[in-house]
Amino acid sequence: MVRIINTRIAKDVVLLQLQDDETRYFESLWEIPEGVTYNSYVVIGDGGAIVVDGWKIGFEGAFVNEIRSVVDLRDVKAVVVHHMEPDHSGSLRELLSSLSSDVKVFGHPLARDMIQSFYGIKPNLTAVSDGVAVGIAGKTLRFFHTPWLHWPETIVSVLDGSVLFSCDVFGSYGIPSTPFFEDLSPADQERFLWYAKKYFANIIGKYVDWVLKNLEKLSKVASLSNIEVVAPAHGPMHRGVKTMASLYSSWAGGDAEKGKVMVLYMSMYGFIEKAVNVLLDELQKLGAKVKVYRFLDKHRSPISDMLGDAIDAEALVIAVPTYDADMFPFATLLLHVITSKIPKNKKVFVVANFGWGPIAGRRVSEMLKAAGFNVVDVIEFRGGRIEESLQRLREGAAKLLHASKQ
Amino acid sequence: MVRIINTRIAKDVVLLQLQDDETRYFESLWEIPEGVTYNSYVVIGDGGAIVVDGWKIGFEGAFVNEIRSVVDLRDVKAVVVHHMEPDHSGSLRELLSSLSSDVKVFGHPLARDMIQSFYGIKPNLTAVSDGVAVGIAGKTLRFFHTPWLHWPETIVSVLDGSVLFSCDVFGSYGIPSTPFFEDLSPADQERFLWYAKKYFANIIGKYVDWVLKNLEKLSKVASLSNIEVVAPAHGPMHRGVKTMASLYSSWAGGDAEKGKVMVLYMSMYGFIEKAVNVLLDELQKLGAKVKVYRFLDKHRSPISDMLGDAIDAEALVIAVPTYDADMFPFATLLLHVITSKIPKNKKVFVVANFGWGPIAGRRVSEMLKAAGFNVVDVIEFRGGRIEESLQRLREGAAKLLHASKQ
Repeated sequence: MVRIINTRIAKDVVLLQLQDDETRYFESLWEIPEGVTYNSYVVIGDGGAIVVDGWKIGFEGAFVNEIRSVVDLRDVKAVVVHHMEPDHSGSLRELLSSLSSDVKVFGHPLARDMIQSFYGIKPNLTAVSDGVAVGIAGKTLRFFHTPWLHWPETIVSVLDGSVLFSCDVFGSYGIPSTPFFEDLSPADQERFLWYAKKYFANIIGKYVDWVLKNLEKLSKVASLSNIEVVAPAHGPMHRGVKTMASLYSSWAGGDAEKGKVMVLYMSMYGFIEKAVNVLLDELQKLGAKVKVYRFLDKHRSPISDMLGDAIDAEALVIAVPTYDADMFPFATLLLHVITSKIPKNKKVFVVANFGWGPIAGRRVSEMLKAAGFNVVDVIEFRGGRIEESLQRLREGAAKLLHASKQ
Repeated sequence: MVRIINTRIAKDVVLLQLQDDETRYFESLWEIPEGVTYNSYVVIGDGGAIVVDGWKIGFEGAFVNEIRSVVDLRDVKAVVVHHMEPDHSGSLRELLSSLSSDVKVFGHPLARDMIQSFYGIKPNLTAVSDGVAVGIAGKTLRFFHTPWLHWPETIVSVLDGSVLFSCDVFGSYGIPSTPFFEDLSPADQERFLWYAKKYFANIIGKYVDWVLKNLEKLSKVASLSNIEVVAPAHGPMHRGVKTMASLYSSWAGGDAEKGKVMVLYMSMYGFIEKAVNVLLDELQKLGAKVKVYRFLDKHRSPISDMLGDAIDAEALVIAVPTYDADMFPFATLLLHVITSKIPKNKKVFVVANFGWGPIAGRRVSEMLKAAGFNVVDVIEFRGGRIEESLQRLREGAAKLLHASKQ
C-alpha cells in the first residue's frame, strides 16, 4: 500500500513523499523489495509557492490534493521540472490544469518537446540556461544543467544557496523511516547507502563519465560546500552534500572495495556450480569479500542487487553454461546490463561449460572484452569435468585478487 | 515436494516417474508452475531387465531404490541412454555402480565422451548405429538416431515393435494425474497438449528443421503406425503416436492457429501500454484470438508460456521502449529466445517509443528481420504521443491478420 508523508524539512520547504512498496520492478526492470519513494517539494516564499518535481504517473489526483493541503493552489507561482522521467513528471498535466494559467514551468530547453510528447500539453515553459538564477515567489532558484544524469534534459537547482534539489542524483531506493539520512539509525544508514549504490548502478551507471564531469562542474559553480540540505527525488534527504558527492565520485571513478569479488553464475544441472564452488573456496581462503548471484532451477537472484555489488567490486567472476550452441539465454540480459552499467576497470574471470560444443566461454569473454573489461582467464570445461581445471580455477582466484591489488 | 509413481504401463514395462513440483525454472530458464516429471522405464523380459533413462541429477539414491523395488538389480542387463541432458542421465554413475559390472549401456556414439565428461565414468558403452535392432534380456530394442532433438546425441528406441521410448520428443511439462494422456479428462487433455506445446517451443523449438527430418525418417523406418505406446521422458504416455506426431509436424512446420496473435510488450510508465491497448481493441474487433504477455512495474509474464503461445500464432506484436539509447534491457533476452526458438514464417508488428531519441524500433526490427521474420510495420512514437499513430496502429492490426490470411 502506498503511503504519503507530508512534512517540513527546512524553514521554507515541505516534503511531499509518496512511499511506494507496490512497485516490484523499478523502471519495470529493477527488483526493489525495499520499495521506493517519489519526493516532491513545495517551497514556500513570501510571494507564493513553488512545486518541485512530482510523483510517479498514476498518482496525479493524490499529488494535487497533497499540494492543496500545504498551500492554496492559487498561490503556486512556479513548477520546476528537473527531469522528465514519468516517475517525477507524471502528474504534470493534472497539476498544471489545477494551477492558475500563468504559472511558470521551469525546465531544461529539451523539456518543452518532451512535456508535449509525454502529456499532450504545451505549458508556459521557461527554458533555463545553465547557471541562471531566477527569483520566484520571493525565493531564488539557481539552475544547473546536469546532462546525462541520467537523461539529456536533467537539471538540478539550488534554493537560496542552501537547498540542493538534485532529482535522481544522490537518490536511493528504499522507504526511510524518517526524512533525513542523518536521523536514521547506523544500521539503517548503512542500508540506505547500499540502496543509493544499487540505485546508482541501476539508473545512473551507464553515464559515469558524465557523473564525474557534472560533479566537477557543480563543485566549481554551485558552491556545494554551502549546501545545507540535499533534497533528491528518491529516498532520504541529506544534511550537506559531502557524503553523497564523495560516494558518487568514487562509484563513477571506478573505485573498488579492496578484495571484493562479485560472482555471478548460471547453472542448469550443477556442473557450473561445482566449478564456482571451487573458486568460492579459494576466494574465501584468500580473504576475499565475495558476493554471489545465482540463476538456478529454484532460484533467481535480483539483477538490481547484482549490479549494486558489481559496481564497486575489484573483480568479477562470470560463469555461464553453453546452451543451444550459444551462451545460456539469461546471460544475454545479464551481460547487457553489466557491460552497459558497470565501470570497465575490472578484472573478470570467465567460467563456462558445455555438453557437446564449447561456445559460451568465447562468446562471454568477447562481449566483456569488447566492452573494455580485462578478462584475465577463460576456463571452459566439458560437462562436470572440472578436475583438470582445478589448478586454473585456483590460480584464477589468486589472479583476480593479486592482479587487482597491484 | 517430489513424489514417485511406480506403475506398470504395459505388459512388460514399468514406469518409474519422479513428479517434481519444486523446480521453478526448467533448465534454470523456463517457468513451470505446473511442474514436470522425469520418466524412467524398466523393461522386464524373460532374460532380465532393461533400465531406460533416469531421473534428474540430485535424485540418484531414490532412483536406484525405486528400480530395486521392481527388479533385482543383479537382473538388470542393460541401461539405455537416449539423451545425455542431466535431467535424464543424472543418475548414471550411481546406477551403474549399483549394477553388475558387465551391464551394457546403449547410447549414441557421441554419448561415450559425454558420459565420461559429465560423470567421470567409463561405462561399457555399446554405441548403437542408426536403425540397429538389439536383443537384450529376451526383448528386442531397435534404436534410431534422432539428431538435434534436441542434442546431437539424441536417440529413440522401439521395444518389440510396439513401445516407442521417445525421451524428450513428445514430452511435456506438467504432472499428470494418471500415466496415460488418453485417460485424462478432456480438460486435462487440453491442458497437457498446451504443456506439450510449451515444452516443444522452449526445448525443441530451435531445431524445427530437424524435427521434420527426423519425423519423416521415423515414419519411413520405424513403423510408427504400429506403435501402441509412446513413452516419453516427461509428462504423460500416449496410446499411439498419431496425436503427437501430427502436432510436432504442425508446430515444426510453422502451422499457425487462424487469427491467433501473440502480443508481447514491455512498458515502464504506461505509454507503450496505451499504444498496445489501441492495438488490442482493434485486434479484438477483427476477431483475433490474442494472447498477451507483459513486462511491467508490477508484473512479469512467464517467458516459457510466451514462447508456447508464439509458436503457433499467425502473427506477433512486439512492443518495446527505448532505454539508455538502446532497447529496453529485458528485450535482449526476450528477442534472443523468440528469434532462436520460434518459426520465422510470421508477420511481426513492432511498436516502440522513446523519451529523447528513437532507438528501440529500429533495433528490434533489425533483429527480427535478421532472424527471418517478416516485419510488416514499425511504429515509433515519442513519449505518450500515440495520437498521430492511431491510424497506423489500427491498420497494423488489420495488416497482421489480413496479410496472414492471404
